[in-house]
Amino acid sequence: MQNAKPLPSYLVQRYQGWKATSYKENESWYRRLAEEGQHPRAMVISCCDSRVHVTSIFGADQGEFFIHRNIANLVPPYEPDGDRHGTSATVEYAVTALKVAHIVVMGHSSCGGVQGCHDMCSGKAPELEEKSSFVGRWMDILRPGYEKVKHIEDESERKRALEKEAVLTSLANLMTFPFVQQAVEGGQLSLHGVWHNIGEGSLEHYLPEEGVFKAV
Amino acid sequence: MQNAKPLPSYLVQRYQGWKATSYKENESWYRRLAEEGQHPRAMVISCCDSRVHVTSIFGADQGEFFIHRNIANLVPPYEPDGDRHGTSATVEYAVTALKVAHIVVMGHSSCGGVQGCHDMCSGKAPELEEKSSFVGRWMDILRPGYEKVKHIEDESERKRALEKEAVLTSLANLMTFPFVQQAVEGGQLSLHGVWHNIGEGSLEHYLPEEGVFKAV
Amino acid sequence: MQNAKPLPSYLVQRYQGWKATSYKENESWYRRLAEEGQHPRAMVISCCDSRVHVTSIFGADQGEFFIHRNIANLVPPYEPDGDRHGTSATVEYAVTALKVAHIVVMGHSSCGGVQGCHDMCSGKAPELEEKSSFVGRWMDILRPGYEKVKHIEDESERKRALEKEAVLTSLANLMTFPFVQQAVEGGQLSLHGVWHNIGEGSLEHYLPEEGVFKAV
Amino acid sequence: MQNAKPLPSYLVQRYQGWKATSYKENESWYRRLAEEGQHPRAMVISCCDSRVHVTSIFGADQGEFFIHRNIANLVPPYEPDGDRHGTSATVEYAVTALKVAHIVVMGHSSCGGVQGCHDMCSGKAPELEEKSSFVGRWMDILRPGYEKVKHIEDESERKRALEKEAVLTSLANLMTFPFVQQAVEGGQLSLHGVWHNIGEGSLEHYLPEEGVFKAV
Repeated sequence: MQNAKPLPSYLVQRYQGWKATSYKENESWYRRLAEEGQHPRAMVISCCDSRVHVTSIFGADQGEFFIHRNIANLVPPYEPDGDRHGTSATVEYAVTALKVAHIVVMGHSSCGGVQGCHDMCSGKAPELEEKSSFVGRWMDILRPGYEKVKHIEDESERKRALEKEAVLTSLANLMTFPFVQQAVEGGQLSLHGVWHNIGEGSLEHYLPEEGVFKAV
Repeated sequence: MQNAKPLPSYLVQRYQGWKATSYKENESWYRRLAEEGQHPRAMVISCCDSRVHVTSIFGADQGEFFIHRNIANLVPPYEPDGDRHGTSATVEYAVTALKVAHIVVMGHSSCGGVQGCHDMCSGKAPELEEKSSFVGRWMDILRPGYEKVKHIEDESERKRALEKEAVLTSLANLMTFPFVQQAVEGGQLSLHGVWHNIGEGSLEHYLPEEGVFKAV
Repeated sequence: MQNAKPLPSYLVQRYQGWKATSYKENESWYRRLAEEGQHPRAMVISCCDSRVHVTSIFGADQGEFFIHRNIANLVPPYEPDGDRHGTSATVEYAVTALKVAHIVVMGHSSCGGVQGCHDMCSGKAPELEEKSSFVGRWMDILRPGYEKVKHIEDESERKRALEKEAVLTSLANLMTFPFVQQAVEGGQLSLHGVWHNIGEGSLEHYLPEEGVFKAV
Repeated sequence: MQNAKPLPSYLVQRYQGWKATSYKENESWYRRLAEEGQHPRAMVISCCDSRVHVTSIFGADQGEFFIHRNIANLVPPYEPDGDRHGTSATVEYAVTALKVAHIVVMGHSSCGGVQGCHDMCSGKAPELEEKSSFVGRWMDILRPGYEKVKHIEDESERKRALEKEAVLTSLANLMTFPFVQQAVEGGQLSLHGVWHNIGEGSLEHYLPEEGVFKAV
């Protein structure tokens, strides 16, 4: 790989600060984690967005959360067709190898991926319809969700509803994985849907009995 | 989604602690991030492993890093075939929409995904060869890497070498994306490969001129 | 300007070292900063003192902090009289154009400007009382602060208290600017006062509820 | 000051990283700097812009540079009228108290303050003409500089020329201070003008004999 460069010094400096403080004071724990392997209690599926700071929001420490982050926190349906399915691989590993007790799907406000899906489905982003658009093809997962919210008149309300549909779509798709369904029904695993408002710092979770997201 | 459950109280409690402290003291910044959108300087591609704590190691704060986490920090090659490619979507969004200046691929010690690839390629994990194994099909990306390290006699050295091959494979695959190549050659983007030893807390970066990973 | 001279070679050498290392490894980021403009998260107002190394203490990198440095980190009160007010211009630009989320006023130990104010107010530095003394007229901003600490018997304690009064005076004066007050009250901006002990490397921040500076 | 808040945790974390690394390894030097006072070799007058990273460009360490940063690196002319002149106070302190050997005025590309002056003088920013505009009144210092470059047809060339005029104006104004003139003529002080291109990482210094800025 001739095109790689050394790590920029600002990251080296950040790392060295961590090494001298956090690492040093937790050295014995980190050594033990390395020797014994990870036993995370929960898997979190969230967006790559730099403003969605899962580890901060849940006060995560080394070893606590198995975290998958992709565009718009989406899980595709179960498709064991022999092709590559990166997200499905993370779910499989978390549930069958690590046996996490919880999977939390976290959506968020001002989601660029959801915005793209909204624009694509409403005809405003033809470039996302192209075969070569990776973001477009990925956001296809949320097309059925758009159908459910397109009647909402106010645009910002419609996008927010679509952000929450992204969470519900992922939860529903998770249940199409036989090993997920089995673990949920056997009581070894529970699924949770949350939506985070970046600016307000608020967090809502999905309450299935009421069929709505409510502030925790 | 009738199977979802409310957020477990231990996570609610963690969230409330964050809201009362970190959120409260950074409220003005979070509001601005929500209004103006994100301008992350770097994208980090790392493993989902709960012990790989990117935000801690780099002292990351809200808005700083666009983070994609998958099994074994792998990037597949460019394949604009109209299928879903979640990881490719994250790279496309980071480079073309956010215009990040750096992509850092971070591998790590004791990587379960790399271990699986090692076992699969050496005939010790036939279940991963099955069409229905998402982890197996995902780790196929690293098969060529296994060919490069299989001559190493010592098993733990061989696995460590394979962990580093995962980083190099991702860096090489990144360059197959036309928009990545163009940004790298135009000086708008630089790629970096690092490998993190969880127990030792050490960090090595790949130096292309020497062709090796060295401690930062 | 016939009196200017070429840059001294020791600075040329320093610059060339930076160009070949830091610049080279961050080139893509610097180009992006040049094209897209700055989005600093915070403004820091600190002293010109060569020992107060804001960028080092906060691990600052290009693009992170909008930094104003003057004698004794003072902000004068709001005076829109049509005269030149260099410090007021920096605050106006940071708050109304850049919309920074934080303003941090940083005082420090062994501050020469504060020492001058102390000597002037206690009658030991008549030359600073002269109309032509720029340092004296600038330090007039801190005269009310001297009144609050002059009862302290121990001289070194008195000076330290005055250094902290310089921070509090600036914070209070900042609030006299209508655009600062509005941004603070609207939750877009927060103000912070810190005092840095150069020799000890310690840092104290002002806690308004307790009315004191305490180690962070 | 009831409106102040504790230091945000991201800055506390940065500080703690510095304390555990840079401070720790330089503790004896920092203690000595605190005891013996500063003896900086040079004063640097630069812009507050977050992208102008003086300490990085000149590899500055604690104790080396007395740094004044304001909007557009401007020095007003000598006016001992008994009013507050914050920038003049920094020059007075640097030259008469610290006896620095060099004053370096550093301008830079994409300067927002210079842009404002350009727009104001060309009639495109009437709001900056208002008495209450601190930025406008501060940029009045550069009005004569605008007169010298307004004939340049290409707008981006004209702005760049004005950025360099800001440096020359400051150098010329510095010489109106009797103590600066005396130190320069006595050979105790030399003045230097440089202009920094943020994106290119280049540095030009003013060569009085040729009357131009040239790459160092």
